[in-house]
Amino acid sequence: MTEPLQAVRWTGDALRLIDQTVLPGRLEHLEIRDVDALVDAIRRLVVRGAPALGVAGAYGVAVAMLQAEREGWDRPALEAAIDRIRTARPTAVNLAVGVDRVRPLVDAGPAAVAAEAERFLREDLAANHAIGAHGADWILARVSRRPVRVLTHCNAGALATSGWGTALGVVRELHARGALEIVYADETRPLLQGSRLTAWELAHDGIPHLVQADGAAPSTVLRGLVDVAVIGADRVAANGDVANKIGSVGVALACAHAGIPFVVAAPCSTVDLTTATGADIPIELRDGEEVLAWEGVRTAPAATRGFNPAFDVTPAGLVTALVTETGVLEVSRGQTPGGDAPSGA
Amino acid sequence: MTEPLQAVRWTGDALRLIDQTVLPGRLEHLEIRDVDALVDAIRRLVVRGAPALGVAGAYGVAVAMLQAEREGWDRPALEAAIDRIRTARPTAVNLAVGVDRVRPLVDAGPAAVAAEAERFLREDLAANHAIGAHGADWILARVSRRPVRVLTHCNAGALATSGWGTALGVVRELHARGALEIVYADETRPLLQGSRLTAWELAHDGIPHLVQADGAAPSTVLRGLVDVAVIGADRVAANGDVANKIGSVGVALACAHAGIPFVVAAPCSTVDLTTATGADIPIELRDGEEVLAWEGVRTAPAATRGFNPAFDVTPAGLVTALVTETGVLEVSRGQTPGGDAPSGA
Repeated sequence: MTEPLQAVRWTGDALRLIDQTVLPGRLEHLEIRDVDALVDAIRRLVVRGAPALGVAGAYGVAVAMLQAEREGWDRPALEAAIDRIRTARPTAVNLAVGVDRVRPLVDAGPAAVAAEAERFLREDLAANHAIGAHGADWILARVSRRPVRVLTHCNAGALATSGWGTALGVVRELHARGALEIVYADETRPLLQGSRLTAWELAHDGIPHLVQADGAAPSTVLRGLVDVAVIGADRVAANGDVANKIGSVGVALACAHAGIPFVVAAPCSTVDLTTATGADIPIELRDGEEVLAWEGVRTAPAATRGFNPAFDVTPAGLVTALVTETGVLEVSRGQTPGGDAPSGA
Repeated sequence: MTEPLQAVRWTGDALRLIDQTVLPGRLEHLEIRDVDALVDAIRRLVVRGAPALGVAGAYGVAVAMLQAEREGWDRPALEAAIDRIRTARPTAVNLAVGVDRVRPLVDAGPAAVAAEAERFLREDLAANHAIGAHGADWILARVSRRPVRVLTHCNAGALATSGWGTALGVVRELHARGALEIVYADETRPLLQGSRLTAWELAHDGIPHLVQADGAAPSTVLRGLVDVAVIGADRVAANGDVANKIGSVGVALACAHAGIPFVVAAPCSTVDLTTATGADIPIELRDGEEVLAWEGVRTAPAATRGFNPAFDVTPAGLVTALVTETGVLEVSRGQTPGGDAPSGA
């Protein structure tokens, strides 16, 4: 397992995805050749993470075009299929960004669309490396303790992106510079992206880490066991409010109380200037059963129902830094994506 | 299932415990006749919850005495066995309180000890009903919305006490008064006392509820979906700092940010005036594997280790109200257990 992790790849006639629902037990791939399978894979979180969804959406247009050719769809049927991919999940803006990036090339044919999706993927990978560098620079300037102890939530790593990662890109960069002591990874219920995916990536790269229950995160921060929290984002509003995996805002509240930085690492494509504030971000409400059973065994009484919002919104006032490929915005000090230039960290 | 739930009961020659590790799938009892089995049951959380641990500790002295008679232990062996029960778990002070309550009666024989433990149990039950009434009075005076929507964490119900419950005693009282809309119950990882035990109690009593991931709790508070959070406590320090199940302080931070009350419901026996502040409360660090596997199936990579503190400390400044059987202290306004009389709610 020494090759770089690539969650989303184009084979020439299919979209090849790491099946993130069976990690860490098994490393398996799905080859996607039709739109139903792609929408299902997106909804079941076979592929997840805002930047990876963007790339999957872009390649998905090529998948739809090849299926349209095979099955003789007319143009409205193709457009409807592309729209289904574009809206398969509501919170991350990147899915729509990826689809919209390649859509003008539909008349040029699937090869042109796939080539543009490939450019999008390479840009995302380059953005991740830039995010890692900017984030590590900012943290090392801001945090005095060496080596640095980081808390992260969910998975904003190679699996959630085109490779390297956003929040885990920052972690990898700190590790590469010899400045990282340990990562506390929240397990991230209900689907355990932290213990299943983040821990798997960190173990893969030999980065020291501990997995903790999500409820432990605020206490770990308040007890002084970490120096900084770094998470990804599914959408950033113009005012700097951040939608990310459910559980993020609890980490942010603890960081504010403890006086340590809460850092959001995400590509510019995650910033949606047409969304004014977090109140305007649609929050996906997933099936409550995801909270009530594990591996098919129910852990709650039969009569009990679950409440399962997939994301929460961290108010801009709790976001110390927003790290993108173009630099760092100190959001809680008033540098908002919709109103200020990056500080150029 | 209409009989009152009683987690801890004396049969005359054994301690009968509901096995809380197999709920909600099965309702089974364990009959405890020796100290090893009792210490194991306490450590495995067959019996848990600060008040229930107190009662189990008191009856445990009778268990030890009967075993000493059967097996011919000398007095130092008996005292050592009682000490093992007293310190089986470090955070809750009630275990020691229960043991110490009956220990002066050891010379009077096991029947006298069991009778005193029974008085202790009845006092705890009465305290729970008083806590329920005081808590409901205070909440209905403080919260204007009707019916009230409550968030709770872990299980501070009949299963955690001699019956009725502390936090769930308040919930049951609100429900009995027709003033309760719904309870959001945090699932409470890693051992799911919320989805397994609290949901089971609420379903048993027909109280409307939803189970959510622990990470969802801060967001549920910030979105205005609940009016008050009510939790139990494992130990309250003289300054009003509260040790409770890991995840509690994240709820408290969210309540403070949202401006809704964070209420701690616990009997006076949970207050330890010899503990000055939360920093002096020992926090039990449990096996990390509890976070990394479920029902024997590992959910994290083999190389990954867990970090599993069982409790956290909520600073007094975040505790709006401490409800005991004698009344209500408004802790964040300066009414601390060590320094002020209850406000007499």
